[in-house]
Amino acid sequence: MRSIKFDFNNAMVKMASHGFSGEELDSPLLGKAHERMSSKHMGFRKLPLGQESIVQDIIKTAGEIRKKFNCFVVLGIGGSALGPIAVQQALARDSSMELIVLDNVDPETMKRTFDKLDIEKTMFNVITKSGKTSETMAQLMTAANMIAKKGFKIKEHVIATTDEKNGNLALIAQKEGLKTFIIPSDVGGRFSELSPVGLLPAAVCGIDIKSMLEGAAYMDKLCSENEKNPASVFALLHVLGMNKGMNVSVMIPYSDSLKYISDWYAQLWAESLGKRVDNKGNEVFAGQTPVKALGATDQHSQVQLYTEGPFDKISTFIKVERFRQEMHIPKAFEYVDDIAFLSGKTFSELINAECAATQYALTVAGRPNLEIALETVDAYSIGALLYFFEMAVSYAGEMMDINTFDQPGVEQGKLATFALMGKPGFEQQKEKMNSLPPKDEKWIMG
Amino acid sequence: MRSIKFDFNNAMVKMASHGFSGEELDSPLLGKAHERMSSKHMGFRKLPLGQESIVQDIIKTAGEIRKKFNCFVVLGIGGSALGPIAVQQALARDSSMELIVLDNVDPETMKRTFDKLDIEKTMFNVITKSGKTSETMAQLMTAANMIAKKGFKIKEHVIATTDEKNGNLALIAQKEGLKTFIIPSDVGGRFSELSPVGLLPAAVCGIDIKSMLEGAAYMDKLCSENEKNPASVFALLHVLGMNKGMNVSVMIPYSDSLKYISDWYAQLWAESLGKRVDNKGNEVFAGQTPVKALGATDQHSQVQLYTEGPFDKISTFIKVERFRQEMHIPKAFEYVDDIAFLSGKTFSELINAECAATQYALTVAGRPNLEIALETVDAYSIGALLYFFEMAVSYAGEMMDINTFDQPGVEQGKLATFALMGKPGFEQQKEKMNSLPPKDEKWIMG
Repeated sequence: MRSIKFDFNNAMVKMASHGFSGEELDSPLLGKAHERMSSKHMGFRKLPLGQESIVQDIIKTAGEIRKKFNCFVVLGIGGSALGPIAVQQALARDSSMELIVLDNVDPETMKRTFDKLDIEKTMFNVITKSGKTSETMAQLMTAANMIAKKGFKIKEHVIATTDEKNGNLALIAQKEGLKTFIIPSDVGGRFSELSPVGLLPAAVCGIDIKSMLEGAAYMDKLCSENEKNPASVFALLHVLGMNKGMNVSVMIPYSDSLKYISDWYAQLWAESLGKRVDNKGNEVFAGQTPVKALGATDQHSQVQLYTEGPFDKISTFIKVERFRQEMHIPKAFEYVDDIAFLSGKTFSELINAECAATQYALTVAGRPNLEIALETVDAYSIGALLYFFEMAVSYAGEMMDINTFDQPGVEQGKLATFALMGKPGFEQQKEKMNSLPPKDEKWIMG
Repeated sequence: MRSIKFDFNNAMVKMASHGFSGEELDSPLLGKAHERMSSKHMGFRKLPLGQESIVQDIIKTAGEIRKKFNCFVVLGIGGSALGPIAVQQALARDSSMELIVLDNVDPETMKRTFDKLDIEKTMFNVITKSGKTSETMAQLMTAANMIAKKGFKIKEHVIATTDEKNGNLALIAQKEGLKTFIIPSDVGGRFSELSPVGLLPAAVCGIDIKSMLEGAAYMDKLCSENEKNPASVFALLHVLGMNKGMNVSVMIPYSDSLKYISDWYAQLWAESLGKRVDNKGNEVFAGQTPVKALGATDQHSQVQLYTEGPFDKISTFIKVERFRQEMHIPKAFEYVDDIAFLSGKTFSELINAECAATQYALTVAGRPNLEIALETVDAYSIGALLYFFEMAVSYAGEMMDINTFDQPGVEQGKLATFALMGKPGFEQQKEKMNSLPPKDEKWIMG
């Protein structure tokens, strides 16, 4: 079953002058990375096939939720939010369940959202491994307070997705008797979409999560068989690109349903590869900046830069071969010859022509670009696509000899937030922050 | 009235090791660019004060629309869409009017949207200067067909915003007797938000467009008085940054209401500065890639890269000092000491602490970052903010000696789309496209 086609012709120098040669593709990096991928333990790789009883529990729980509730609110941020959002946008076509993902703490949004919630018909799913994330815990406190105030029971309106034993949320879940799903300790946030983090919200939205996992399993198999596989080649082209100054990776799906796949990819690519040190401890300041775009829309905002600006990008188009809905462009204004060619065509033809035209424009301007074609958008192809990127970023991390799976750079900001919010034990951090040079008034204007 | 405060302390080497020195700020580029800005005709600069009768017409028209309709559908893409979306997200707080911006031609979205429209209660606003944009014209044809089929009159359900005389849409507007607003010929799409392109949708959403224009006028005055002003310094820091390899400009507002200001900025910055040649015709492949982010959300997806990755970014935080709604974090789960510090704080405090913490983290990691603080989000401050960026990009273009206002690189893709869609007269273009080397099967996988 070929759910995804990866075409990198337009990244080769034969097509795009700033592309890559066949010899470069024969890089020893490919074999080395494949060997490491085969031997290293990577938690996310056991998700496609290792969760049978968990999946049964999720499907059963989701069924009960769908009977009692019409609103499912995810409290989570980063890896706990981007996967659920991306998958819902791609696959949920069932308007009987509203999914709200609260992945920010904007007071205006919080107020507006909580004001309109009908608690009786609302189930919250709080997702955080440690229970230390200030944003998510503040939201949980708000939800719990509201549930109690309205006379409902917390354990009937909150499901926890968290660490098996440790952390604030595990403790709360135990004390309150919450239904709990486990985030495996060896699966990081940005790799957790195929764990209960993503599977529960997806199942609640009526998405076929077994099929998602089958798509992922297919991709795992495809990438295990040969060192030259779609994920390893995608990785290699990006790593070779970085070495040539392509520090930007553009992701541009041509389908509204895939818009938030770009956001999910942006976290995966940025957090996994953006690293100060390599595995030997050398300072490398590595990383490639993901840019989210959407076709055809962003042709009218970004393509000027992509075709004429610096040669600092490698772009990935995601194309859908068969849309789930179709619409014809009718006859109208027949006195205008200049638009008559549109009549009788379909919107699928138009959006895919826009995609092909932009690929062409980038290619003749010498810009390497890749294409991932999905036969159609369904649970299987989305499972395969997400897993493809997880494999690709893991390959890239091995090629770059960095730790793909940590995020030490996020700590500093978290500590600073604790200090600014007056958390006990962070007084020293606060002092450290206060010892920065004072602001210079002449560098403030307006 | 100080609606915007621009603080660039954290971009200076005194604070961030990879920042700029006071001497660099005394660049002669500043004076030169200011001189050119004072003498060059730039169409967008007459918008804040030069539209009195147009604004009256817009307000009157919007009032009539608000009486008869509850849904306003913008058909437009790029500069015709991003401004209306950004301003609506920032300012519209009136749920009696639904604004739909159709800025893509995804068949699934088109079908879903058109299926649910109640034509009787819907006014379309088609926005395109030339009337050649395939996406927008295909949507207009669809809308016109549907209006007629349901037995309504096109001229009672479509308003055109287009060129005064030329182009397909001007012709249609004349033939069909459509109410028409003019896009000034010297104002390009990405600079058109303060023209009828943006003002009509805003007024229909109940936004105070006079106040928006006053904010813009204030900013124009502020920037005219002195060569060192917020816009020129913002531009200079970015241009100096580009010269040091900072080819990425991150825009990260800490407010959901400002989320799409980043998208609007991304077009403005990318299309204006991404240029193959300078004003003398030298190939320069200039440009800086805008990256849209949202705080606090993207701390959990991008900040790892921003603090530890390459020194290739200059980041702009947009902070809101006073939110329009507030919410307190209540007491809950008092047996968990580790989260007790959150109780009693507000969500405003939390999101602004997250902002300050991330600014601190970037600064101590040596990364230059800027802050734009809005006293509050209102029509005046948004008008000022949009105009600030329009001035800043114009300054940057003058410093880089490029044409800020054209977009020659978009042509290639448009021609290719015409060719692929079988538009008469584009047969040669099609042949040219077919003469590319054939695709190599070994570079297709999956």
